Amino acid sequence: MTPGGEPIFFRAGGIRFDVADIDRLLEVIRGRSAKTVGLQFPVGLRTKAVELAQEIEAQTGVTCLVSADPSFGACDVPDMPVDLIVHLGHAPMPHLRYNRVFFYDLPSPPLASFAFLDAALPLLPRRVGLLTTTQFRGWLPAIREYLEKKGHEVRIGEPDRRVAYAGQLLGCDYHTATVVEKDVDGYLYVGTGDFHPLGVAILVPDKPVVIADPERGTARNLAEVKDRILRQRHAAIARAHDAQVFGILVSRKIGQERMELAKDLKALAEKHDRRAHIFLMDLVSPESLEGYRVDAWVNTACPRIAIEDVLQYRQPMLTPQEFEIVLGERAWKDYMFDEIRA
Amino acid sequence: MTPGGEPIFFRAGGIRFDVADIDRLLEVIRGRSAKTVGLQFPVGLRTKAVELAQEIEAQTGVTCLVSADPSFGACDVPDMPVDLIVHLGHAPMPHLRYNRVFFYDLPSPPLASFAFLDAALPLLPRRVGLLTTTQFRGWLPAIREYLEKKGHEVRIGEPDRRVAYAGQLLGCDYHTATVVEKDVDGYLYVGTGDFHPLGVAILVPDKPVVIADPERGTARNLAEVKDRILRQRHAAIARAHDAQVFGILVSRKIGQERMELAKDLKALAEKHDRRAHIFLMDLVSPESLEGYRVDAWVNTACPRIAIEDVLQYRQPMLTPQEFEIVLGERAWKDYMFDEIRA
Repeated sequence: MTPGGEPIFFRAGGIRFDVADIDRLLEVIRGRSAKTVGLQFPVGLRTKAVELAQEIEAQTGVTCLVSADPSFGACDVPDMPVDLIVHLGHAPMPHLRYNRVFFYDLPSPPLASFAFLDAALPLLPRRVGLLTTTQFRGWLPAIREYLEKKGHEVRIGEPDRRVAYAGQLLGCDYHTATVVEKDVDGYLYVGTGDFHPLGVAILVPDKPVVIADPERGTARNLAEVKDRILRQRHAAIARAHDAQVFGILVSRKIGQERMELAKDLKALAEKHDRRAHIFLMDLVSPESLEGYRVDAWVNTACPRIAIEDVLQYRQPMLTPQEFEIVLGERAWKDYMFDEIRA
Repeated sequence: MTPGGEPIFFRAGGIRFDVADIDRLLEVIRGRSAKTVGLQFPVGLRTKAVELAQEIEAQTGVTCLVSADPSFGACDVPDMPVDLIVHLGHAPMPHLRYNRVFFYDLPSPPLASFAFLDAALPLLPRRVGLLTTTQFRGWLPAIREYLEKKGHEVRIGEPDRRVAYAGQLLGCDYHTATVVEKDVDGYLYVGTGDFHPLGVAILVPDKPVVIADPERGTARNLAEVKDRILRQRHAAIARAHDAQVFGILVSRKIGQERMELAKDLKALAEKHDRRAHIFLMDLVSPESLEGYRVDAWVNTACPRIAIEDVLQYRQPMLTPQEFEIVLGERAWKDYMFDEIRA
């Protein structure tokens, strides 16, 4: 996933983050007697980094190190040589064992208008599963109430070991959607991009997924995007059909590393008389894969890489499940969207 | 330093590396009873990665992991979850404590023609310091003999704690040049790019530095490039003159990390009533620095970043010595090219 994949709301500075209002953070830093503090930001909060470091240093006397490696989520929390790491803008993944990391919760921005919900209403079935990402999670009670007033039955799926909040979607985990599948006729996703709800649309193919976009104040059904992406996936599988040498990508990032899966896929390739080699890296990017003599890639890192960035790579880029289809171990009718499960 | 900064000879595939001829490497792998082996390549050797992994796996039964993070030198040897790391194409830095890394020495390519030396002869003074990078180090005895036959006195500086071979230059260490400074009237650098000898030209300003380029079969004096770069450096210093907030870049890479220097520079800034914050990262790139609210950067990572890539950064990018000039702690007449010393 590229920095361009960050939620627009962060990029637009829409997140509520007032450096004057960090008492709780200062308390944590003082409470841990930290001398050095590492600061990690999603791309859209970089504009606040210097101001925050300055304020923390002035108020507590610690030395701050700003982590300038990009951070794409709670899956991506690089270790730092400091007493305490403060990670902003993402909710922790409960199953991961982070080492001296404090996730500094930022409140959701004010819910100023229901226009995006009004736009969604005509597209919604009666029973709705409500979904969002971490930055809008504070809106869910108000949205539920609004929808119920309009006659809808609303379900918000409970979180599990990989997601922190009810109704929260990750780009690699759709548990809060699938757990309420039996009780809903469709989903409403509150957010700005297509990727998170796309996984839901593919995993639950017979129920509509509607996006209500609070930035634009508009809503749309995801069916068309889903069909386009599935055609792309079909094409990637077809292009990889005769590939002899596969490169299996494994991320070093704490919440993206699936080495055991990669080794299983390598063995599966060899069972089918194909060659496969494992490539280990921090950030997967087109530049970092240039020059290697492989016919196709299989991505076990962040699922967005294969789906969103596929056109940037010279060779076909497959998910693990698509690789199984290429090898004849899975049928296209059993197509599954890739998730990273704990 | 970007992948584009790799020596052209690697890019052109000119390095001699025959996967059929790796008996010595296989012996090392067997001797260490490794079950998993990590492979690290400079960008130009990526074309051989799959072939090498395949050969090692077939011959020894180990599982190879290819490191697909870019590698820019022996300063840049990421740890890997394997029994043995094999690093190709760079000579180790003697002072660094690498953990289970085997540097697999690749021979210099055949010295097919002396045309590049003949082109250099008219530009050379009588007493010459001979310099090159690791991939051409095998040529030095023959070149010395050739120059001596033409009446030159040749010195090849002994290595020290940061460079492995006599006459070897790094982009951050000019010891093998400065150690013979008193005994030579100028330098001959055998190689393809400007950066390595540029440091010599600036550190030893009164002696000519001539590049003999074996790729092109041509030679040139570096004086003009040196003047252009010094004008650029002067401009960067001038642009940073009124900067109030500095970002001091520290690399995570084993041979580039200068955290103590960064902390000293931060304290120096504060002494002069400027603000400075430390930014820690693996790879320094224009994208990774976008969005932060600083007026100028100070680079303590690979010195090439400030010199070669300066035009790619929005804010002025200074070396530590240039930062001292901005703060009034050093005079322009005492300008020093940045080196990383052990």
